[in-house]
Amino acid sequence: MRILILGGDGYLGWPQALYLSEKGHDITIFDNLSRRHFDLERGFNSLIPLQTLHERIAVWKALMGKQIHMRIGDVMDYEALAAIFQELQPDAVVHFAEQRSAPYSMIDRKHAVFTQTNNVVGTLNVLYAIKEFAPACHLVKLGTMGEYGTPNIDIEEGFIEIHHKGRSDILPYPKQPGSFYHLSKVHDSHNIMFCCKIWGLRATDLNQGIVYGFETAETALDTRLATRFDYDQIYGTALNRFCVQAVAGSPLTVYGQGQQIRGYINLMDTIRCIELAIMSPPKESEYRVFNQITEQFSLNELAEMVVEQSKHFGLEAQIKFFPNPRVEQEQHYYNATHTRLIELGLEPHLLSETVLASMLAFAIAQRSSINQQVILPTVNWRDAQNEVTP
Amino acid sequence: MRILILGGDGYLGWPQALYLSEKGHDITIFDNLSRRHFDLERGFNSLIPLQTLHERIAVWKALMGKQIHMRIGDVMDYEALAAIFQELQPDAVVHFAEQRSAPYSMIDRKHAVFTQTNNVVGTLNVLYAIKEFAPACHLVKLGTMGEYGTPNIDIEEGFIEIHHKGRSDILPYPKQPGSFYHLSKVHDSHNIMFCCKIWGLRATDLNQGIVYGFETAETALDTRLATRFDYDQIYGTALNRFCVQAVAGSPLTVYGQGQQIRGYINLMDTIRCIELAIMSPPKESEYRVFNQITEQFSLNELAEMVVEQSKHFGLEAQIKFFPNPRVEQEQHYYNATHTRLIELGLEPHLLSETVLASMLAFAIAQRSSINQQVILPTVNWRDAQNEVTP
Repeated sequence: MRILILGGDGYLGWPQALYLSEKGHDITIFDNLSRRHFDLERGFNSLIPLQTLHERIAVWKALMGKQIHMRIGDVMDYEALAAIFQELQPDAVVHFAEQRSAPYSMIDRKHAVFTQTNNVVGTLNVLYAIKEFAPACHLVKLGTMGEYGTPNIDIEEGFIEIHHKGRSDILPYPKQPGSFYHLSKVHDSHNIMFCCKIWGLRATDLNQGIVYGFETAETALDTRLATRFDYDQIYGTALNRFCVQAVAGSPLTVYGQGQQIRGYINLMDTIRCIELAIMSPPKESEYRVFNQITEQFSLNELAEMVVEQSKHFGLEAQIKFFPNPRVEQEQHYYNATHTRLIELGLEPHLLSETVLASMLAFAIAQRSSINQQVILPTVNWRDAQNEVTP
Repeated sequence: MRILILGGDGYLGWPQALYLSEKGHDITIFDNLSRRHFDLERGFNSLIPLQTLHERIAVWKALMGKQIHMRIGDVMDYEALAAIFQELQPDAVVHFAEQRSAPYSMIDRKHAVFTQTNNVVGTLNVLYAIKEFAPACHLVKLGTMGEYGTPNIDIEEGFIEIHHKGRSDILPYPKQPGSFYHLSKVHDSHNIMFCCKIWGLRATDLNQGIVYGFETAETALDTRLATRFDYDQIYGTALNRFCVQAVAGSPLTVYGQGQQIRGYINLMDTIRCIELAIMSPPKESEYRVFNQITEQFSLNELAEMVVEQSKHFGLEAQIKFFPNPRVEQEQHYYNATHTRLIELGLEPHLLSETVLASMLAFAIAQRSSINQQVILPTVNWRDAQNEVTP
């Protein structure tokens, strides 16, 4: 298949491109390199050094004889985006090209406006480009489990049957997103659903949980094919941060009471889920939603697992409760359905001791590169103006 | 009270400003005049001639001795918007400053992107300006009943209690908006609800039905105080169009089967509802939603009422079914709760024969100004690129 990967230079986009290229698909990456630009602005760094996109692609070609195509461009530039749909006529487009950090979106007004404009208008541009130039193309869109918030009822996959005053209907699942970033994904979901209805587009909205892991079968072939490992306060997720803190000898900073439960998924499973979605496309006019998680944990459970595992490496990790910079429920019910990807064939890689050990071993190997200044949160949801000081 | 009216030069904003000024409030209008600009671009015109905002304000001052303050500015210009919040310290802000036409938003990609950017970012700017400079200010935001779509269960006021798998929660009412414009209002609703939660803002989201009528006690004092009467395909709503068509001797164009039911409200009631919301503000952190309608009708019912009433004026109006340019359910259940504004004291002006007669009499008086070229729809929801040809 001809597959266009928007944001194919990012944490997920790059290993996705490799995986699908290895499977024999014809892959084109479209990326504006904005994730790397943010690091440059702030002085942040992936814990594993990254090659340029050009170098990555050349290494893959040299190793595997497979050509990944690339074009540097921005989904906000409709002419550039439309041109690639027109030329390529992709069978599927995987849309990772969004600002993906909740704390980033909460820094101040400009970051909130940038996040919502970039994500919402970027996705509108993708929808119009499909409609105008490749109407049969399957849109695979990365959403987030954070769109749902923490309702007191089970979370379903996108839709819920509601019985009310003697009548019933199947309606979009009510959303309670917890940051301007998560809100942007809710806005996208509504826009995509509408375009499927009016234009007959076909779309899969993957409400992804928090992704952990740094390696896939393809990235492991050569260190020059590595993807990002973020542990900073803006882009690093809890498990990465905990592993780095354990190795650096600083306490694991659990926000609030630590009883916040979220859905998680291994990087390898994420990439497989997207392949599964691509291989079983929706019908014309169909908008479908899969919850892309395999397990759920509380923050405390994650922290305790890291503390336990780090003992095997001779580390004495401590947990420290940190005033919660987010506004979120800290004690809540959480049970999210996630059967549709399993039904398509997903065989989950769960968060085992082996996985944790590999993450810790990796952080130990990179110990000299750890910058502890970037870990502690300075972005508080309650403030309208935050400084990100590394 | 000190009240800031964003979009105070528009169809609703202007009579709202007069009404609240008459009641003794200190009124400031902030408007970028974009609605008038659209008419200039397209060669459209309100059926009743409009004075400039400067002239309107001067007439009101001369007649009533009351000064309405004005500033020409755009909610997209954060510095200008923030400055007025900082200087004025308003008790309430009424936010009409959005692109308000569904067909406009469906013209093409640029109009869709403009509508969502202008409305979503404009409202984000208002939220940040309140948070930073007037945190106790009550945001009264115009939403739309079109946010709900046409679910097969009763529509509630913003939230619904859902029982699911033995548990229950009160959650935001699921939304199924029917245009990029209606989607922008859904995006706004989510953003506002979130800011109430994280920053303790207080907001009333008024999901308004389709407004009809052209006169209030204040605008009737002098023709130079008149508000708009739109009957074109972009900004004219069905009842206005039907009245103008009846008077012009052209058939009343009912879209599709005409069984589409919507909520309606008289201009005078809309203005009173906003006063009621202002006089009973929500608590800190409270986000409340009122359904601002008084009745519901199908398109066919409206058209038949106009046909009947026009007989009294010696007009023989015909109904013509027109291929539906919109993508919407044409046969559906519709029952929308609207009790909260009644509880606050609203006494509805229903769509009586007298009201219809006054609309027809008005259209007859303005008959020579009717431009029939602007009435028939050229914007089709199924197309990504439409030309608006007057």
